[in-house]
Amino acid sequence: MSVTRPLELHPDRLFPADPTTRGLARALYAEVAGLPIVSPHGHVDPNWFATDAHWTDATTLLLAPDHYLYRMLYSQGIDLDALAIPSKAGVPATDPRAAWRLFAANYHLFCGTPSRLWLDHVFAEVFAFDVALEAATADQYFDAIQAALATDAFRPRALFDRFRIDFLATTEGAHDDLSAHAAIRRSGWSGRVVTTYRPDGVIDVEHEQFAGAMTRFAELTNEDVHDWRGYLAAHRSRRAAFRAAGATATDHGHPTAQTANLSTAECEALFARITGGTWSAADAELFRAQMLTEMARMSADDGMVMQIHPGSYRNHNAGLFTSHGRDKGADIPKRTDYVHALKPMLDVVGTRGDLTVILFTLDESSYARELAPLAGHYPCLKLGPAWWFHDSPEGMRRFREATTETAGFYNTVGFNDDTRAFLSIPARHDVARRVDCSFLARLVAEHRIADWEAVELAHELTSGLVRRAYRIDQPAPAAIAA
Amino acid sequence: MSVTRPLELHPDRLFPADPTTRGLARALYAEVAGLPIVSPHGHVDPNWFATDAHWTDATTLLLAPDHYLYRMLYSQGIDLDALAIPSKAGVPATDPRAAWRLFAANYHLFCGTPSRLWLDHVFAEVFAFDVALEAATADQYFDAIQAALATDAFRPRALFDRFRIDFLATTEGAHDDLSAHAAIRRSGWSGRVVTTYRPDGVIDVEHEQFAGAMTRFAELTNEDVHDWRGYLAAHRSRRAAFRAAGATATDHGHPTAQTANLSTAECEALFARITGGTWSAADAELFRAQMLTEMARMSADDGMVMQIHPGSYRNHNAGLFTSHGRDKGADIPKRTDYVHALKPMLDVVGTRGDLTVILFTLDESSYARELAPLAGHYPCLKLGPAWWFHDSPEGMRRFREATTETAGFYNTVGFNDDTRAFLSIPARHDVARRVDCSFLARLVAEHRIADWEAVELAHELTSGLVRRAYRIDQPAPAAIAA
Amino acid sequence: MSVTRPLELHPDRLFPADPTTRGLARALYAEVAGLPIVSPHGHVDPNWFATDAHWTDATTLLLAPDHYLYRMLYSQGIDLDALAIPSKAGVPATDPRAAWRLFAANYHLFCGTPSRLWLDHVFAEVFAFDVALEAATADQYFDAIQAALATDAFRPRALFDRFRIDFLATTEGAHDDLSAHAAIRRSGWSGRVVTTYRPDGVIDVEHEQFAGAMTRFAELTNEDVHDWRGYLAAHRSRRAAFRAAGATATDHGHPTAQTANLSTAECEALFARITGGTWSAADAELFRAQMLTEMARMSADDGMVMQIHPGSYRNHNAGLFTSHGRDKGADIPKRTDYVHALKPMLDVVGTRGDLTVILFTLDESSYARELAPLAGHYPCLKLGPAWWFHDSPEGMRRFREATTETAGFYNTVGFNDDTRAFLSIPARHDVARRVDCSFLARLVAEHRIADWEAVELAHELTSGLVRRAYRIDQPAPAAIAA
Repeated sequence: MSVTRPLELHPDRLFPADPTTRGLARALYAEVAGLPIVSPHGHVDPNWFATDAHWTDATTLLLAPDHYLYRMLYSQGIDLDALAIPSKAGVPATDPRAAWRLFAANYHLFCGTPSRLWLDHVFAEVFAFDVALEAATADQYFDAIQAALATDAFRPRALFDRFRIDFLATTEGAHDDLSAHAAIRRSGWSGRVVTTYRPDGVIDVEHEQFAGAMTRFAELTNEDVHDWRGYLAAHRSRRAAFRAAGATATDHGHPTAQTANLSTAECEALFARITGGTWSAADAELFRAQMLTEMARMSADDGMVMQIHPGSYRNHNAGLFTSHGRDKGADIPKRTDYVHALKPMLDVVGTRGDLTVILFTLDESSYARELAPLAGHYPCLKLGPAWWFHDSPEGMRRFREATTETAGFYNTVGFNDDTRAFLSIPARHDVARRVDCSFLARLVAEHRIADWEAVELAHELTSGLVRRAYRIDQPAPAAIAA
Repeated sequence: MSVTRPLELHPDRLFPADPTTRGLARALYAEVAGLPIVSPHGHVDPNWFATDAHWTDATTLLLAPDHYLYRMLYSQGIDLDALAIPSKAGVPATDPRAAWRLFAANYHLFCGTPSRLWLDHVFAEVFAFDVALEAATADQYFDAIQAALATDAFRPRALFDRFRIDFLATTEGAHDDLSAHAAIRRSGWSGRVVTTYRPDGVIDVEHEQFAGAMTRFAELTNEDVHDWRGYLAAHRSRRAAFRAAGATATDHGHPTAQTANLSTAECEALFARITGGTWSAADAELFRAQMLTEMARMSADDGMVMQIHPGSYRNHNAGLFTSHGRDKGADIPKRTDYVHALKPMLDVVGTRGDLTVILFTLDESSYARELAPLAGHYPCLKLGPAWWFHDSPEGMRRFREATTETAGFYNTVGFNDDTRAFLSIPARHDVARRVDCSFLARLVAEHRIADWEAVELAHELTSGLVRRAYRIDQPAPAAIAA
Repeated sequence: MSVTRPLELHPDRLFPADPTTRGLARALYAEVAGLPIVSPHGHVDPNWFATDAHWTDATTLLLAPDHYLYRMLYSQGIDLDALAIPSKAGVPATDPRAAWRLFAANYHLFCGTPSRLWLDHVFAEVFAFDVALEAATADQYFDAIQAALATDAFRPRALFDRFRIDFLATTEGAHDDLSAHAAIRRSGWSGRVVTTYRPDGVIDVEHEQFAGAMTRFAELTNEDVHDWRGYLAAHRSRRAAFRAAGATATDHGHPTAQTANLSTAECEALFARITGGTWSAADAELFRAQMLTEMARMSADDGMVMQIHPGSYRNHNAGLFTSHGRDKGADIPKRTDYVHALKPMLDVVGTRGDLTVILFTLDESSYARELAPLAGHYPCLKLGPAWWFHDSPEGMRRFREATTETAGFYNTVGFNDDTRAFLSIPARHDVARRVDCSFLARLVAEHRIADWEAVELAHELTSGLVRRAYRIDQPAPAAIAA
């Protein structure tokens, strides 16, 4: 019979092996390991905190919503139905326990991936397992998780407190009514869960649900959203509503980083083609480009931090898109230009010190070549952390190595977990803290910065930069607070 | 007088310097150092094993055929004639010993290159030298190698056995009659040397020998290869012949990774331009693109693994191409897109679990950005190892660091030596094993994987993955075996 | 009250932490630390050596001319006027001491950047400070530097000698009369300060001062520079004058690496559009491209080494360009192709062994993919060191790791400081020597090269390669020496 393997999180995990550097990393990490979590960008479902309902089982909570996990399993020929992944036909009739067993039997596929680090952290720290997940322990895991989730200590708000989360931003579309956030506020619960303004649905005319989103956008704002001025007014209206619901930021997930700087007449003509259904693919791209500039202008006015997340070829797998729809692990990064793409927007708002635009990339070749020089020059630009496929120990290390010498640390904004996997949030922040402290430790070991500077920087990278960049501690504007 | 330098292969070569990590790497390497060699992709001349004839001298065997070597010497202004490199005018009248002396006097140019690691391995392990190659030892080397090659122990089949090669794939064109492979099989020799189907010569209309290749293709298949259906039938016919000669894979060395998904009518019209001589450069590219999709379809049918090796600007040096022809060290990598280029083919076959397509690149910026996300999602895609200029310690390290976190280890396929330098095959596999074990050792030292997982993975990276990916242990299809 | 922090340059700074590797790096560095400085490419003002006048204060000498410094401060919202940075309106009325205080109070922004390493070296080694720069020490710094600069020991020629500079190349435009260099030679001072031929001003028709530069070009050469043949003759004339003033090299800072190979008739027609003011943006690019080939031809004739520095999007910040003009830290690198771009020029001169073309890049993705393979093949090509944003510890490490395995060490050319910050020259060379020795130490520690080879290479990387590549020790051509 097989002997189960132990599960232990080594206290020195992710620190460099060299004893001097490891000692320095350990000391730096001790400074920041216990700091509260600030999560300014993510995709957790706010209804969890509105209802505080129990989750049911490991498959439904941990596997089915996490495209990092089933992407890898699918790549090895495992059927998504067998993993209980919902398709357009609905949730398959697969027994959640059977899906969990299949996942457990293939857990070795995640060796060397961040998903493995995060999950082991969840298993050990959140659920207190001391044996590793594998075929032989699949049922033990499933049963113990199910039992835990039935207790009050594992309801969403209890975990929010246990995780010591100080600030958690979710993301809602411009056409969302923010009812979940309203319910959270009405409930009197003290957790700071806020929204983020993500208007892609009413900007990207190539999205299959654009028309519906526009209809809802009009209903929520009482604006004529098919008129260029009314459309802009509707954005202003929704931005104010999001601000009132605690939002400090907007988010823009465009296929490219292209911006534009059209005249009002050109905007009106373009918008007429967009809303009139006579647009070309180039029009769709130009409209997205122009709207980044419009959003930047509005951010300079209302103080909302702007995040640009470009460069993903969404829904690359045509067959899977047909059967399962969006966001099923089939988004593939592509080469992304910033130096030309951002110039039209920067020509308009680049020198405004009252604006913060945070840039992300899936194309690491742009870190040292374009992004660090841009952020190391323009007052309005900051660099978001290593993102998505690069939210990983090697990815974070490459980010620091490629950007620090040109942009410094103070043009970066701390860590984003960017996740819908709520239970993994502490794990993700822990990885980031460990990797940043390891990078700082190397700089100290190589006498490139002083030890006391590294301590200051460890605090900045964990807490100071994110709080300032996302304006978390600023009072809301008077007009809105009123 | 000068004192000769010793030649020794340090047992810890290529392992990281940190003592803990080195100890782990050493232990992992001990697990796999002695495993047989599986070489699923390379360019060794099969006639060597068909005839088992003696090689003659160091220059003819080691220098003249190796464009990695004379490329570097040429870059430093050394004349190719003086190195006995054949030109279009034939083999120059250079004394092989004089060429060898010139090479030896410039051996320092290779400091820090993989060629140096491979050659020193060949010198120390295959020929038992204990002094380094330099001007002062050139004659000693030349004489000793000549003497060794005259013995039976240094004939091709004896070295094949001595090297413990379990499987060796060569590469032949679609228009090759496979006579060398037939001779190997007729000889009754037990070594497993098989072919690989490389149809570029009858697909790339821009190749200067396309017409001749097509003529030969028609002769070998008795198909009307100037008719689209006949042309496809000819491919099927040759693929079956290659399968019967042991091939498990096809190989495609296109300038780009572009694929296409044309209708039959479009294919027929395009093919008429190709064979009618009225094609444009865009037609040539489109035809190559369409043929990748056709080859993928056939692979899904006949089970042959498909390898795509794109992204080299061939014969970049116009003067050298005129004087010396192809494959003279003047191929330069170029930026290569995969995310858009592969989509047409993936739209057709991407979700077929019975197909394996192995992707290679010369553009490392695609590792983390495109290739790992593609292979970490599509069931049919796997990542080939670090290739050509990146088949090197730093290149392999970058490959693992950039791909593992997104694609894992199990979407990779082990090592390819991709060489025509038969004597260097053990050296190349040894470098790969050392670098992979060093990478695994770092993951263990940083507590990112467990020690027992690293042992399993070392075996997988050396043996398991390559055997499965290239279907080496699968019985040939019944229809072909019959 | 605050306690000031000590400033000390650790003797092991920039060496890897692993004790074995650090020991090797330290030993290699000891070999080359004291070698004289050869600076073959930079932008120091030659008038400093012509007049040997005293510099006045820290702000004017160290801060105001250094766009690396005020770029970073500007990115954090600090006003350039407050830093005493000249604009188109002239030097602002800011008190230099107030500007210095502002800089000192923000010195933490440079943590982790090479500017910080260089400045601390200048402070500790040139000015003998033992406390760190910060708000509390700003005045102490300002006063001590002012006092030092008033002494003869801190005049330009004295520092030149103290820095042990063996060779220093400045850069002048084709339309510069070289009067500063003439004054240096007339003065009888023994320092070897030479010029470099940089003809961009009379090649780039998109430069706002092109017309004026052409007028001056005509005056200096007495050629009809608006006739294609006269224009080429003017270049030959100025090249000869630069050669006579000690130049061994030319330099070309184009937006791209594009070259062209037009017929004479095409050149004449293109040139007529350029000088006639009827050119398009494509014409401007084509003319720059053609001129690289013309310059290469002339270099093959007159022996001047050619340097190509492409890939910067100049003056990206439109607002800042309007207010402050060129070279204000707003140049952003962009993706740069070499494999296609250089082919037209290489078709003409690629195989000429009497030509040396040194390639630089701001796009690190080209190191392993294009530049190392090109330099590892073409006799005329060499790789310049890590440049500008990549002139940094991580940048230099990436350069060696990405290029060595394909191009070796002998297709590289040592270090360039590329600076106008004269006082930082020893610091910059010291960083390069430390990083190169660290790289060599790793190769030795990993048994990839022998210890004696590393010693040879440390000397080559510091001294041998740069002297040979830039032909520093070659006698001037007889025709010019006469």
